[in-house]
This record gives sequence, structure tokens and C-alpha cells, in this order.
Amino acid sequence: MRICRFGDNRLGLLRGELVHDVTGALASLGQHSYPLPTHDLMIASLDKLRPEMESLADSVEGQPWRDLKLLAPIANPGKLIAAPVNYLKHLNEARGDAEIHHQGKVEEIQRVGIFLKATSSLVGASEGVVIPFPDRRNDHEIELVAIIGKTAKNVAAKDALEYVSAYTVGLDMTVRGPEERSMRKSIDTYSVLGPWLVTADEFGDPSAVDIELKVNGETRQRANTSDLVLNLQQLIEWTSSYYTLHPGDVIFTGTPDGVGQVQKGDVVTAEIERIGTLRVDIR
Amino acid sequence: MRICRFGDNRLGLLRGELVHDVTGALASLGQHSYPLPTHDLMIASLDKLRPEMESLADSVEGQPWRDLKLLAPIANPGKLIAAPVNYLKHLNEARGDAEIHHQGKVEEIQRVGIFLKATSSLVGASEGVVIPFPDRRNDHEIELVAIIGKTAKNVAAKDALEYVSAYTVGLDMTVRGPEERSMRKSIDTYSVLGPWLVTADEFGDPSAVDIELKVNGETRQRANTSDLVLNLQQLIEWTSSYYTLHPGDVIFTGTPDGVGQVQKGDVVTAEIERIGTLRVDIR
Repeated sequence: MRICRFGDNRLGLLRGELVHDVTGALASLGQHSYPLPTHDLMIASLDKLRPEMESLADSVEGQPWRDLKLLAPIANPGKLIAAPVNYLKHLNEARGDAEIHHQGKVEEIQRVGIFLKATSSLVGASEGVVIPFPDRRNDHEIELVAIIGKTAKNVAAKDALEYVSAYTVGLDMTVRGPEERSMRKSIDTYSVLGPWLVTADEFGDPSAVDIELKVNGETRQRANTSDLVLNLQQLIEWTSSYYTLHPGDVIFTGTPDGVGQVQKGDVVTAEIERIGTLRVDIR
Repeated sequence: MRICRFGDNRLGLLRGELVHDVTGALASLGQHSYPLPTHDLMIASLDKLRPEMESLADSVEGQPWRDLKLLAPIANPGKLIAAPVNYLKHLNEARGDAEIHHQGKVEEIQRVGIFLKATSSLVGASEGVVIPFPDRRNDHEIELVAIIGKTAKNVAAKDALEYVSAYTVGLDMTVRGPEERSMRKSIDTYSVLGPWLVTADEFGDPSAVDIELKVNGETRQRANTSDLVLNLQQLIEWTSSYYTLHPGDVIFTGTPDGVGQVQKGDVVTAEIERIGTLRVDIR
């Protein structure tokens, strides 16, 4: 199943090129008073919502997805978690390019650990990226992104994929500089997800997936998730030993080599096999 | 005004030692459907809620706060933002103690930047801190904490305090090691806030406030916020140039020298002038 959010917080089910408005299925998520739940209600109930989403989709005309304003496909993530230097070639690239990390040395992910991006930085494909510091180097980073489906604490790698609800394409935008990643990568609009979610049952195995990013049509990053240093299962094992993962938490699995600068006017297309292409304007 | 959250998500108004249950005032915050608001509704509407909170408090008996289970006084923060090495003496302490940062050098806050803590790590005074890695060094860090009251983007330092709704005491628990702060400080229960909020009008000037932390009755950290490298106004100016601050966002302003290890069974008391004492059990 392919799920998008569009327009004025509408929920859509994709069939081919068409989006069917299934917002009505959200009614069963109920009304909530303060304090609000801190996880994503739609993801937490996705299995229960699916039959009604399918049935609603049968009853309404679809609209071409290219005509819609695509929002981030996840509305209420509690955490955006991201893996740094998680492709060996990108580690070597970062070590060879002083501008990328501004540090004495670039360390391996096992030492660096996993960082957080502010949830306030999240946007969808149609919202675009706005660069507030054009005089600094602002880089694109394509990543396979997993959405956690149920509460996970101290999960073993061998069981980890049971906790994944869906996958999407992520653009982990980054301003280079000395500051910690959780600041440099949390600028408003610097976390782009989309164009939609593909549920884990439809997506299948995340361990050997082609990913490719182009800027203005020219390939900049091309890799396969089989080259990840820590794969998704290991990332879930490691992060869930520190903190509880909740439904809707987002895991950016890391970016391969080829990161490079973008500027106002550029168009970034980030494509991942079995998901689709996230097209983002740099504004 | 002093506001706490207690028991089963009750809202309390403190008068002297007594907490008056004013949960009824939250009804005006309404019912919300998916997607849920991503800021804290209570904080966003605090000025409007105050007259009803006062009036409800007049009509119900108070209970001694010591008899209550105190929750984190803020329920739905979008971000926990924190300033590293923001007291000069702590910077020197960190530079002198290889265990504190595990890095080649400890850099100044202006280079390190501001980090994020996972909102899932947040607990209140009565919930206590649970140490999952007792073989590593786990340190206490007392901090004056500000709660953002209204949306703030590119705010100048001179205007910054207008955006602060309330203050509280923060315990920024930390496991030492090489990983980025946003991982080491995001362990479940490693962000403690409380015992209550003091609204900005009652708290007054944050620029010269005594703070003191004791472990089992023995003083470990003692300082005054006048020794901050970047004061709260500068932190708001800097962070709001990167990302939008939303109502309920939490800013930990940094910890002074004297950080040290705690272990299971310890009792930490963190006291800040004009707020009170956050008493936390290490479990």
C-alpha cells in the first residue's frame, strides 16, 4: 500500500498514478484532549485503518499525484533519528574533504553515534527546501527512511524489521560547519520526506535497494543499501538500547558518497527503488 | 504563577505548599483530530487560561505537593534544545577530564552549537532516572530551563525574553562516551523537568540566578547564571536563526562545573532560586 498526505492535511491512497482521498478513514482515530498523544496515531493504527482505506479508495475517483501538493507523509513523528557516515565510501569522502565536517578527524558511526533532527524541520516534497545561510555550504543527502510502526525498546537486530511500518525517501539537508549535526541538520525545511509511504509488506527487504540522487538532472549520488555500514536492523537495535522508539518515529539510514552543494533554483530528485522519486525545489 | 502536572495528567496551581487541581481549565483547549498540533497547547494558551485557573483554584481545596506524583510540567514539547559547555568553568573542567568528552579537544559552544535531546527522554520529578548502562559514567547536570511561549523565528537577543513563557529546573542526564550528545543525552528518563513551572512574570530576570545541585545532600554544582557564556537571550537568538521555536519548546541553558557521576540509589536535589527544588531518585 502507498499512502500520501496532500493538500490541506488530506490522506491519500495511491493506485498507479492516482491518489484516492481516504481522509474519512481517520475518523476512527478519534478526538484527543490535552495532553495529546506523543506518537503518530495514523501509523500506530495503520493495520486497523487499511481495510477502510481500501474500501474508501474503491468509492472515490482518483486524482493524478502530480497535480497535488504533497505534504510530509508522516504528520506527528516523535523523533527524527539519523545515522551519520553510514556508507564506507561517504566516510572516505568526508575524510578527504575538510569542508564536510570541519573536525580534526571524521570518525566512524560506531563512535559518532546516531543523531536527532528537529521534528520542526520536516516538510513534504511540494514544500521545498529554503536555504537561510546561502554563504555556507548546503549539501543534499539522499537516504532510505524507515518509519517505526510499534513501540520498540531493546529490540534485537534479528527481530527489528517487525517494528518497521513503512519506508519512504528522505532528503537530509545539511549546512556544513563545526556545529553538532542536531543543529546543522535541523534548519526549517531541512528534513524532506516523501513522496509517499510504501508499507513494509509491499516494500519488502530493505537490505539491497538502489538509491540515486540527481541535481538538475545530473547524477550526484548513486548507491545500494547493501553498502550500509550499519544496516537498518542494527540501527534499530542500537538506538532502541538508548531510547524507546514509538510509532511514527523516523529513521534516516544514512547517505552514500557524492554529497554536494545545492543552491536556490536547483531541483533535487531523489529516487529509491520500489518507492519512487522525491522531487524537491531548492527555494 | 506556579503550575505543575501531577497524578494522572492533572493540572495543578501551586499556592504556597498546596496544589489546587485546575484540570477543568484545560477544557477550553478543545478536542483535536489527526494530524495533531505539534506544539504544546497549554503553553500556547497560557495567558488565556490563567483567569480560569485562578478562579478554579479558589474553589477547590489544595493538597500538599509533597504527597503528589509530579509529572514533567510540560506535556507536549516539540523540541528539547540544550546548550553544551555554556559555563566557562565547566568548559575548563571538561578540558581537564578526558572522561567527560572523549574527544581530541573540547570546543567552545560557539563552535559546538546547540544540540537536541529526544522528547521521549522527558520525565517529571517523581518518575526518577533509570540508568541503563551502569558500567559507563553517568553524570548529573543541573540547568536553568526556559519554556518558549510563542512562535519565534529570527528573534533578536534584545527581544528574546518576550518569547519565554515560564522557567523550571532541568536535570540534563548524560552518559559519557564518544557519541554525539543528541544520543548520549536522549536515553529514556535522561531529561527531568520540574518540580513545576514558574511563569516568566513571576520569575523575573533570568540573568543572575543561583543554582545548586546536591547528591545525597552533598553539594556538587553551585553557580549563578550570570556566568553563562551565552545567556538565554543569545541562545534564543542563535537557535531561532536555525529553526522556528514553537510554544512549549524547552531550552536547557547549560550546566556549570562540578558535574559528576551518579548511580542507582542516589538522590539528586537540584535547586534554582525563585523556582524550587527538583528531587530525583536514581533508580
